[in-house]
Amino acid sequence: MIKGEIIVLSAPAGGGKTTLANLLLKEVPKLVKITTCTTRKPRPGEINGIDYFFLSKEEFEQKIKEGACLEYAIIHGNYYGTPKEEVLKEINKGNDVLLVIDVQGMRQIKRNFKDVVTIFLIPPSFEELINRMRKRGDTDEEIRKRLETAKKELKAWREYDYIVINDIIEKAKEDLKRIILANRLKTKRFSPELLGDKILKELMEN
Amino acid sequence: MIKGEIIVLSAPAGGGKTTLANLLLKEVPKLVKITTCTTRKPRPGEINGIDYFFLSKEEFEQKIKEGACLEYAIIHGNYYGTPKEEVLKEINKGNDVLLVIDVQGMRQIKRNFKDVVTIFLIPPSFEELINRMRKRGDTDEEIRKRLETAKKELKAWREYDYIVINDIIEKAKEDLKRIILANRLKTKRFSPELLGDKILKELMEN
Repeated sequence: MIKGEIIVLSAPAGGGKTTLANLLLKEVPKLVKITTCTTRKPRPGEINGIDYFFLSKEEFEQKIKEGACLEYAIIHGNYYGTPKEEVLKEINKGNDVLLVIDVQGMRQIKRNFKDVVTIFLIPPSFEELINRMRKRGDTDEEIRKRLETAKKELKAWREYDYIVINDIIEKAKEDLKRIILANRLKTKRFSPELLGDKILKELMEN
Repeated sequence: MIKGEIIVLSAPAGGGKTTLANLLLKEVPKLVKITTCTTRKPRPGEINGIDYFFLSKEEFEQKIKEGACLEYAIIHGNYYGTPKEEVLKEINKGNDVLLVIDVQGMRQIKRNFKDVVTIFLIPPSFEELINRMRKRGDTDEEIRKRLETAKKELKAWREYDYIVINDIIEKAKEDLKRIILANRLKTKRFSPELLGDKILKELMEN
């Protein structure tokens, strides 16, 4: 069985990563997301194990100690993290796992994991980044804070494997699909076992 | 100016590489082929500098000595080679150069060049390989010889970056396009210079 890989997608806030991730999950076969863990309280309607695994602070810190998180971060005082076991389960089934995480998370994953493809989504312009935040309904103060973070995150672009400019969403989506699908054609994802042909299989295995 | 790269496409005889290469050159923008050198005599209608650069044995051997060939091979007593200068010219213009060469040629290119993407095209079955040779009009003796070579070449698949199975030609073409286009999204092919936006450019350059 050929294993899947982790696809990391990062972008500054307002970069359009959530919209694109949802489109990819719908359109790319064998690309899945996993349920992440958090210590934040469930909002009305949110279901444990579906929206998040809701954990207490103590439970989350225990998971970190056990090395059960591939990456985690503290955002506004709450823990958010990617459970290693869930990711490995999907990868072993041959699925690619899409993780939408920030630069810090990408760095943690790269330290812990070899087979990762990292993609950095950049907005076409700084103005457009502000526009998108406004459209989302962010306040001036939120925008100011997010832009500070965006400025820091943008500097990390060289650490990623691929850069996609999110100007026209359809085009960005096609670019992301190309990266994910071409990655599956890498030699390490091929095995002569995949071939129906016995002679060819034997020739290639020797 | 972002440079292009060399795309190496190899396949055993009858693997369909010529057909696919011609389709790619037609459909993929900024993908070019270059005129190669040979010591074989021009056939009626063949034009020097278009079909090949026709060289004498002495001229070709001089080029080898000068290191002017990225790779070369002797086939049926004639030299065939890829002129380094022509490749560099296209790459410096930002074009990708498609080279349809064998395993030996791929190895030479990899020794001399860093920015190369190598793709190995494999037939869906051994039977299909024989069928394609027959359709092409190869004699039994030619088929026997070519199959011996194909057997040797097939063993080299692990040395390539990507593997594409040429079962349905349309599908194989799409796979090849994906590899070539996704490769252009690699971080090393990006520069903030490409962005029209001044603020973003300055942020990313620092």
